[in-house]
Amino acid sequence: MPPPTSGPLQRLNDALSRLPSLGRRSAERITYRLVRDKKLAEELHAALGQLIDQVRLCPRCGNVSTRSEEQCSICRDPKRNPKQLCVVEQPDDILRIEQTEAFHGQYHALLGKLSSMRGEGPRSIRLRKLLDRIRNEHITEVLLAFNTDVESDATSHMLRELLAAENVKVSHLAWGLPVGSGLAYTDPITLARAIAGRQDMP
Amino acid sequence: MPPPTSGPLQRLNDALSRLPSLGRRSAERITYRLVRDKKLAEELHAALGQLIDQVRLCPRCGNVSTRSEEQCSICRDPKRNPKQLCVVEQPDDILRIEQTEAFHGQYHALLGKLSSMRGEGPRSIRLRKLLDRIRNEHITEVLLAFNTDVESDATSHMLRELLAAENVKVSHLAWGLPVGSGLAYTDPITLARAIAGRQDMP
Repeated sequence: MPPPTSGPLQRLNDALSRLPSLGRRSAERITYRLVRDKKLAEELHAALGQLIDQVRLCPRCGNVSTRSEEQCSICRDPKRNPKQLCVVEQPDDILRIEQTEAFHGQYHALLGKLSSMRGEGPRSIRLRKLLDRIRNEHITEVLLAFNTDVESDATSHMLRELLAAENVKVSHLAWGLPVGSGLAYTDPITLARAIAGRQDMP
Repeated sequence: MPPPTSGPLQRLNDALSRLPSLGRRSAERITYRLVRDKKLAEELHAALGQLIDQVRLCPRCGNVSTRSEEQCSICRDPKRNPKQLCVVEQPDDILRIEQTEAFHGQYHALLGKLSSMRGEGPRSIRLRKLLDRIRNEHITEVLLAFNTDVESDATSHMLRELLAAENVKVSHLAWGLPVGSGLAYTDPITLARAIAGRQDMP
């Protein structure tokens, strides 16, 4: 498909191309769909306007919040354990964990991870803020809930070293077989980690 | 990934889900990226605003045009052959054909095709307008430049029947082997059409 040549289309196409999951051709397909479907373009425009106006990240934990609230709903909830802190990479990870209803403490989203490829070091992520919170909020237990790629592992290792100096228990999510799956569908690295992390039968 | 639960995120996610090429998970990934990257959200918002304000389809041929122009640049070009009309499904098809520099007449985008699945009959596409143009502009040659799926074929057949009553030469794009490809990479239906449409050696 030819890239759009007129100014406004080119600009929209460029912005769409920067979104995750969208390749060059998908961005072009969407651009032309929006040209043809003004109603959809207007709905998307209004929704983005509302996002820009109303949504922001909680300054304390990095969770999705609204501009009218000083802190997010989890930070404000007095029933949450104030001594337990779950560290995640991104705000959407918080929603994923909340869906499990298996964690009842506080959260801290780093909004990134160590990445030599993207030139992101410890200063690019909300690390200083994390250490401040651990001290000021007298956190006793930290759960690292990261992805399992190389960059996340590097971030996890760095955090473990940094937190060794603090008086805090540190754990990470268990690695092992997904429930409902089987050995035949599990890659050797996951399987090796499931063996190394084997759990005693009750 | 959990679907966003707060109002503005839900709304953006719904709008994104309606775009082509985007599945549910991609829409959610984009929603959360836009939450984290307000600069990108603002650029996309501005680009959509410009699209809504400035871009519209040419009322004559359906090509992409701007609000400030009464007709698109092709309709206004006196060097184009006014008797030749290329009928396409969508405005982006016009750009694809223009890139070839192999057609120098006028265009007409139907902005759709016959589709029993989507309940789109002859009245859903710009068919009345096409017949009016063929008569009023004294068109002598019509080239149907459609896709090769079932719905496009149905649209092509209907048009051929309708145009039989008009004093106009009707052709369609040749079906055959893509240039740079070979028999091994060509499906049997395309190959059968290439045989049926075989061309004399010069």
